[in-house]
Amino acid sequence: MTQPEKDADGITDVSGVRVGHARVAGAGALSGTTVVLAPEGGMVAAVDVRGGGPGTRETDALDPRNVVQRIDAVVLTGGSAYGLDSAAGVMAWLEERHRGVRVGPDPSHVVPVVPAACVFDLGRGGDFSARPDAATGREAVAAADAGGDHARVETGAVGAGTGAVVGGLRGGVGTAGTVLESGITVGALVVVNAVGSAVDPATGVPYGSWFEDGRAALPSAAVHEAALRRLAEARAASAPPPLNTTLAVVATDAVLTRAQAQKVAGTAHDGIARAVRPVHLMNDGDTVFALATGRKELPEEPGPLALNEILAAGADLVTRAIVRALLAAPGGQRGPGGDFPSYGELWAGIRP
Amino acid sequence: MTQPEKDADGITDVSGVRVGHARVAGAGALSGTTVVLAPEGGMVAAVDVRGGGPGTRETDALDPRNVVQRIDAVVLTGGSAYGLDSAAGVMAWLEERHRGVRVGPDPSHVVPVVPAACVFDLGRGGDFSARPDAATGREAVAAADAGGDHARVETGAVGAGTGAVVGGLRGGVGTAGTVLESGITVGALVVVNAVGSAVDPATGVPYGSWFEDGRAALPSAAVHEAALRRLAEARAASAPPPLNTTLAVVATDAVLTRAQAQKVAGTAHDGIARAVRPVHLMNDGDTVFALATGRKELPEEPGPLALNEILAAGADLVTRAIVRALLAAPGGQRGPGGDFPSYGELWAGIRP
Repeated sequence: MTQPEKDADGITDVSGVRVGHARVAGAGALSGTTVVLAPEGGMVAAVDVRGGGPGTRETDALDPRNVVQRIDAVVLTGGSAYGLDSAAGVMAWLEERHRGVRVGPDPSHVVPVVPAACVFDLGRGGDFSARPDAATGREAVAAADAGGDHARVETGAVGAGTGAVVGGLRGGVGTAGTVLESGITVGALVVVNAVGSAVDPATGVPYGSWFEDGRAALPSAAVHEAALRRLAEARAASAPPPLNTTLAVVATDAVLTRAQAQKVAGTAHDGIARAVRPVHLMNDGDTVFALATGRKELPEEPGPLALNEILAAGADLVTRAIVRALLAAPGGQRGPGGDFPSYGELWAGIRP
Repeated sequence: MTQPEKDADGITDVSGVRVGHARVAGAGALSGTTVVLAPEGGMVAAVDVRGGGPGTRETDALDPRNVVQRIDAVVLTGGSAYGLDSAAGVMAWLEERHRGVRVGPDPSHVVPVVPAACVFDLGRGGDFSARPDAATGREAVAAADAGGDHARVETGAVGAGTGAVVGGLRGGVGTAGTVLESGITVGALVVVNAVGSAVDPATGVPYGSWFEDGRAALPSAAVHEAALRRLAEARAASAPPPLNTTLAVVATDAVLTRAQAQKVAGTAHDGIARAVRPVHLMNDGDTVFALATGRKELPEEPGPLALNEILAAGADLVTRAIVRALLAAPGGQRGPGGDFPSYGELWAGIRP
């Protein structure tokens, strides 16, 4: 994979795909919503749910056998199943703009299909009832729209990643993007909130770093031992979350069928598996959406295998985005909801 | 995961599960069949097919919604879709022993349900038509039966792995097993024949090794560069296979529902993803079977999450089994079907 000079190395490398975050307000709140907004006219979408404890909305509509052909936005949200309400605000925003599945004679007669998936962060800021709602969703979709094309995506403890935790460390939002040899662009956005670990306990290296070209830097033994001690203390002080989840969106400007998009969503789970271990457990709700704006045809050769390039890149970008989410996490979060240090403070000597 | 003292660290750690290999005879043949045989009375089974180019038989019968409750054997075979015929020999062997789904008044009235999946190795020994058939399947199941319980599983270029290739290197059969803290035993068997690589091109380390406890040993730069040169030569001299595939079987002595077994099969694909990159491509037929002999109840606590321990172990064992398959491959295979060095000769200084 090569990097174009002007890209942001994020999901917004894909022309027309915009991202917006919103955060739940209040002292006891540590949650939010992230919206991935399609260009006008919508995009092909698919989903693959591999976690054992998923929380989703409008995912059945994405089955390639079903009727809806294109969608306008995908919602990733905190607040567990309650947070799925944030999709209502995105629907309202889209309806006002007459964007959605046309269902009547008037252009205003639309039903926007807004697939959504949630992560569990209830009570992480101390207030169990501080969750994203329709207003949070509306704020996030408006932010996505206002950001414009190719805007740099904010990462770390933002949007749906505001209260995210992975293996006792602070999780959050990460993103990555690339242009393939064929000229097709692929990007990924993740919200990392898994029960498993994103860090190899033997070395302190983020698992996903092994899959970057070049050798991962090994923290010194002293740093690593101190980090493990601090993490063990923090974990002992925090109740383990009953549910978790890594969410991902893989977007491309390729022309994909809905079935091809579903294949992309499936192999993107490999990218999660390489960066988080164990994963797809009964208390993970791991869900991947794949989106295709349909602006660039796949190369004619080698026939159906032309998809391979996107499959491989999608998985790799998800891995990279997860490592970045880990590194982008700001200082630790310590409060009534628990004690969650960041990878940066523990292993990388970052003191925010 | 802890190791019991007397186990073989293989799938046959699971009491009652037996493995047999058979090889197609002939100068131009480089293929074979592997059978995983259940104890008398059969076992719960499930399957998850994640590759884009699968070749399978009797997998629909394993859908937990369908009628067949237990099966007696699973077949992994070379010979691409032709090789699925090897299941016929396994069926015949089982029928003679009145093992299968009872369908009539006489104990001999059985239909053995024998799920099978294949890897592509056509022409790898030079003869495109030298493939496993019913006789090969019969030989493999008889070998499994004769081997007895807890027999050490032969690995490397045997059975369905006889002609296997992974990323231009010799692949083959690998196995691993463990006893969990709950006392439940889990084992895995793989046949590695993927289009992707099992070796990190940046370091020469098998990807899966990063997921073993402790730091993987890095080959020296000189060894690594020489290995990459030799591999590039070999790949240039060999036609890339049009189809590939990693097959895996995860077995346990736990009492699992068929739906739980399907979850185990699904997460086991994470173990493939960690050891082979890229994977699950359109020309991979990656398929995982999960088997449960039902001799040990899952712990009552923590409810549905009790499955997590098996999910995590299944994925880890598949990763370890893939690394072992790579290391177990004997000297390279060089012939009319192509030039396929082994990892051992190129990176580990093994000169068989």
